[in-house]
Amino acid sequence: MGRKPNYKDEEGLKAFGKRLRELRLEKGVTQESLAYSTDLALSQIGRIERGEIGASISFVFLFASTLGVEPKDFFDFKKESVQK
Amino acid sequence: MGRKPNYKDEEGLKAFGKRLRELRLEKGVTQESLAYSTDLALSQIGRIERGEIGASISFVFLFASTLGVEPKDFFDFKKESVQK
Repeated sequence: MGRKPNYKDEEGLKAFGKRLRELRLEKGVTQESLAYSTDLALSQIGRIERGEIGASISFVFLFASTLGVEPKDFFDFKKESVQK
Repeated sequence: MGRKPNYKDEEGLKAFGKRLRELRLEKGVTQESLAYSTDLALSQIGRIERGEIGASISFVFLFASTLGVEPKDFFDFKKESVQK
């Protein structure tokens, strides 16, 4: 990805993970089922939801189509990210 | 990232790249300036905007804070992603 391929916005990932969990539960989808549909390991779903690891933008679309929501729904929160 | 770390939603990445470009131009920010602020190579900004490569969710937050927009603004489009 370039000079900072592993750039990580900890606060952002926590907020994204929390939204993923909220939307998943709203849709009555288990972590197991989301893991199966997205071909990710169950442990990764858990780690993404806890904001421990991120995912690529492509997975935002995959999560959205799997849960039947819009990609932007995952970013429906106010985030005071720490300026650089 | 698991069984499909390199999963790529081509249509989604094109739509995201297009939005990034639109928002960048709306804010009067050059590719060079965005590259400098995000510590990415100029070529990567171009490739992301053309949907050739993706980025991580953390970069969505970085692009948003750099351009002064909300992360969800990058996903403000209807995407008929191809179902699996």
